[in-house]
Amino acid sequence: MKRIVAGLLLTGLALPAFGQSADSLMMLAHKLAKVGLESGKSYSDLKDLLKIGPRMTGTARADSAVEWAVRKMRSYEFDYVWKQPVEVPRWTRGRKEVAVAKVHWKTDTLTVTALGYSDRTPGGGVEDTVVMVRSLAELDSIGRGVESKIVFFNGEFDKSLINTFQAYGQAAQQRGRGPALASYYGAVGAIVRSMTAVTDDNPRTGMTQFPDSIAPIPCVAVSPVDADRLASKFGGEKPVRLMIDLRTKKDDPVISNNVIAELTGSEFPGEIILVGAHLDSWDLSVGAHDNGAGSVQVIEVLRLLKEIGYKPKRSVRGVLFMAEEMGGIGGIEYARMATWNNEKHVAAIESDRGGFTPRGISIQADEAKVKKYQSWAKYLEHIGADKLVKGYGGVDIGPLGETGTQLFGFLPDSHRYFDYHHSALDTIDNVNERELELGAVAMAIFVILLDQYGIQ
Amino acid sequence: MKRIVAGLLLTGLALPAFGQSADSLMMLAHKLAKVGLESGKSYSDLKDLLKIGPRMTGTARADSAVEWAVRKMRSYEFDYVWKQPVEVPRWTRGRKEVAVAKVHWKTDTLTVTALGYSDRTPGGGVEDTVVMVRSLAELDSIGRGVESKIVFFNGEFDKSLINTFQAYGQAAQQRGRGPALASYYGAVGAIVRSMTAVTDDNPRTGMTQFPDSIAPIPCVAVSPVDADRLASKFGGEKPVRLMIDLRTKKDDPVISNNVIAELTGSEFPGEIILVGAHLDSWDLSVGAHDNGAGSVQVIEVLRLLKEIGYKPKRSVRGVLFMAEEMGGIGGIEYARMATWNNEKHVAAIESDRGGFTPRGISIQADEAKVKKYQSWAKYLEHIGADKLVKGYGGVDIGPLGETGTQLFGFLPDSHRYFDYHHSALDTIDNVNERELELGAVAMAIFVILLDQYGIQ
Repeated sequence: MKRIVAGLLLTGLALPAFGQSADSLMMLAHKLAKVGLESGKSYSDLKDLLKIGPRMTGTARADSAVEWAVRKMRSYEFDYVWKQPVEVPRWTRGRKEVAVAKVHWKTDTLTVTALGYSDRTPGGGVEDTVVMVRSLAELDSIGRGVESKIVFFNGEFDKSLINTFQAYGQAAQQRGRGPALASYYGAVGAIVRSMTAVTDDNPRTGMTQFPDSIAPIPCVAVSPVDADRLASKFGGEKPVRLMIDLRTKKDDPVISNNVIAELTGSEFPGEIILVGAHLDSWDLSVGAHDNGAGSVQVIEVLRLLKEIGYKPKRSVRGVLFMAEEMGGIGGIEYARMATWNNEKHVAAIESDRGGFTPRGISIQADEAKVKKYQSWAKYLEHIGADKLVKGYGGVDIGPLGETGTQLFGFLPDSHRYFDYHHSALDTIDNVNERELELGAVAMAIFVILLDQYGIQ
Repeated sequence: MKRIVAGLLLTGLALPAFGQSADSLMMLAHKLAKVGLESGKSYSDLKDLLKIGPRMTGTARADSAVEWAVRKMRSYEFDYVWKQPVEVPRWTRGRKEVAVAKVHWKTDTLTVTALGYSDRTPGGGVEDTVVMVRSLAELDSIGRGVESKIVFFNGEFDKSLINTFQAYGQAAQQRGRGPALASYYGAVGAIVRSMTAVTDDNPRTGMTQFPDSIAPIPCVAVSPVDADRLASKFGGEKPVRLMIDLRTKKDDPVISNNVIAELTGSEFPGEIILVGAHLDSWDLSVGAHDNGAGSVQVIEVLRLLKEIGYKPKRSVRGVLFMAEEMGGIGGIEYARMATWNNEKHVAAIESDRGGFTPRGISIQADEAKVKKYQSWAKYLEHIGADKLVKGYGGVDIGPLGETGTQLFGFLPDSHRYFDYHHSALDTIDNVNERELELGAVAMAIFVILLDQYGIQ
C-alpha cells in the first residue's frame, strides 16, 4: 500500500482531500474518475478508429484497425505490444440484398440485410410461400410443413424487460439457430425480424449458425417496420410469397490478428488480469458501440493506470479480439494459445455492451462469491457503477473461463444498445463522450481492485 | 392493502409471480415497469407535444401547449383538470443576434445567442474593449476597471464532476448574476461562455437576472468553440474589441396558465402529493428534455396509476408549470394560490433534469430523514433507480417547500443533459423512448410509496 501512496504523491493528489477515514484505494478510484473525465482518450481514440470505416472480419479495413491499434498502444508506451495471428473466415454481403413480398398480384419491397454466413441464392433469387412462426418451438411443431418454403421468424423483442440483453438473448435464438432449423426441415430460405425494441426501418444483421451437417440457406434480417408489414399480409385467402435475391460470398480463410498490450506486473508478472473487447465490427456501420467503444476502453484502462502512476503487482493485459462477430474466433484462439503457453489468467473482464453510462460489473460465479465481490462496490459508487451482480462475462473471454479464469462483464446502461446494434445507426453521433470515458474508469478501478485483492 | 391486491387481481397480475415473500407494493412496482415499457405513453405524448414547436413563455405556442395539456389530461379521464392563470413576462429575441470580435483590423464573427432578459443595443450595436474574467470574484477584483467595457465571462464547466448539475450550478452563476454585476461596475455589455461539457458550436441561452436597482445591459451566450476562439485573442499587443448587436424586446406581461390534473384521494383527499414539471421551454429548440420530457412524465405518472387500477388514498396532482425559464413564475404563483386556498401539500416531486435513464430520487431533507427514505430503495431497484440521496427538489416546487411541503427531485442519469440544454440540440432525436418511459415509472412508484407510507 505504501507504493500506491507514493505514486499518489508523485501525481500530485492532495492526501487530506478525503479526510481521516479515506484509504488510498478510494483515493485512486476518485483520481481515476477525475482524470478520465477531464482528459480521457477513449472518445478521441474512438473518433480516430472509426475513420477506418467498418471493420468486418477478413477485410483490408479490419487489417487497418489492427495496425491502428498496434500504433495507438505503442504511442502510449505500454510495456509490450504484439499481434497474435488468427485464422479468420471471409464472408461478404456482395450486391445489395433484395426481398419482395407478393400477395396475389401485389408486390412489396422489404428493407432487409443478409445474415452473416447466409448462403447466396441462385441467379434470379428464390421465391416461395412464406410460413410465419414466432419461435423455434413453433417451427418444430410445423416440422416438414415448411419444406420448399420460406420461414419468417417474427418473434418479438420483449420490451418489458429492464435489461435489454435479456430480451436480446431470448429473441436472438431465432436468428442464430432459426435458419439452420428451417433448413433442417427443408425450407429454402429464411427471413428474421430484427432484434430491437424500436420500430424503425433499419434491418439488424448478425451471425447465423449452420452446423456442418446442415446446408446453409439464404437468410435475411428484415427491419421492424417491414416485419410488421409482412406479418400484416397473413390471414387473407391468398398465400404470402417472398422472393429473396442474395449475392453473398464465402472465400478461403485469411490470417488476421488479435492485438495485445501488457503492463507487466511488478510482483507476480505471471498472473494475468485481462481486459478485453473485440476489434471487428459488422459492415453496415463503423460499429461505434459494437465494439469500437469497448476497444478504445480496453486501451484506455491501461493508459489510465499508467497516467495515474499505478504500477500493477500482477500483469494487466489489454486484448483486442478479432472475428467475434463471426463466431468468437479470436477469443477461442487466444485461450488456445494461453493454454499452449501455460499462461495463468487469473481474471478477465470484457466490454461488449456499448459505451453507455456505467452501472456495474457482472460476475460469472455463484451467489456466495458474488456477495464477496459486493464489498468492493464502495469503490465504484462515486461513478454510479456499483451494481456488482451475478451474470455473464462475455463471448471473447468465455473460452478462458473454461480453463479456470474468473470472468467479469462490464455493465453499462442497456436501454439504448439495441437501438443501434448491428445496424447502420451504430455511429459516433450515438456515443456520449462522458459516458464512454466513465466506462473505462469503471473498468480501471475494477482492475486495480483485482490487482490488489486478487479474486475472491 | 386489501384494496391494492383486489386491484391487482382485476388487472390480471398473477400473484404467485413474486413468491411467498413478495408483498403487493413490490408487485405494483414490477407491474408499473412492465406496463410503462410495454405501453407507456410518455414518448408518443412527447412527440405530439413537440409538434407545437418551442414553448417560450408568453407566446402563442406556449398557449397552444397549455391547451394541448388540458386536452391530453382530459383524454386520460383524470378526476379533475383545470388551468390556473399566471401573469407572465414577455421577452423576445428579435432579429438574429450579431457579435463580432475585432483585433486591430481583423474581424471574427462569433456564434452567439442573447440571454433571457438581456437588453437590446442601440441601433448600430455597442462596441468596446473586452475584459476577460473566469469568475464573479475575478470581476469583483477588477471592479470599476470594466467601466464602459464589455465583460467576457469565460469560466469553464468542470468536466471532472460526476454530477453535471453540480458543474452547471457552479458555472451558471456567471450567466445568472454576471451581467448584472458587470452592469453594476459600469460595463456596457457582457458575453458569457455556454455552460456545457462539450466543445461544439452551439450557444446555450438561459435567463440572466437584473435586480430592479441595476440597469439591464446587452448580454449574449457564446458557443464553447467560439469562447475558446475569443479567449485565444487575448495576450497580444492590441486590445480585443467586441461589437454586439441585439434586437431583444420586452413587452407588457400577459396571462398564461399552469395546467393541473388530479386523481382525488379516497381517504385523505385534502392531502396532496404533487408531481410537477415546467411546460415552457426556450426558443432555440422544442425543449425535448427541458422540459417536454418532464411534462409528459407528469401526465404519465397519473395515467400509469389509473392504468394499473391504483386508487390513491391521498390526492395525486400533476402540475405543469408555466414560465420556469423566465424566473420560476408559475411555481411561485402555484404556491401562493395553495396558501390562499389553504391546501395541504404533503409532498412534491419535480422532473426537470431530462428524460434520461432513471437513477434515483433526491430528497431535500437532513441525513437522518434521507436514511429513512432509503428503506424504500428496494422498490426502485429493479428499474435501477434506487439511489435515494440528499439533494435539491426543483425550481417550481421550491416555493411549496417554504410552506412545509417535503420536496423531492427525480434524478435521471446526468451525463448527457448539458450536451443539449438550452440549445438548438434539445430535440426528440436525443430522447430515448425506454429511458423516458422508465423515468415516469420511477416517479409513479415513488408516488405510490408516498401515498402508502406518507412522508418520513
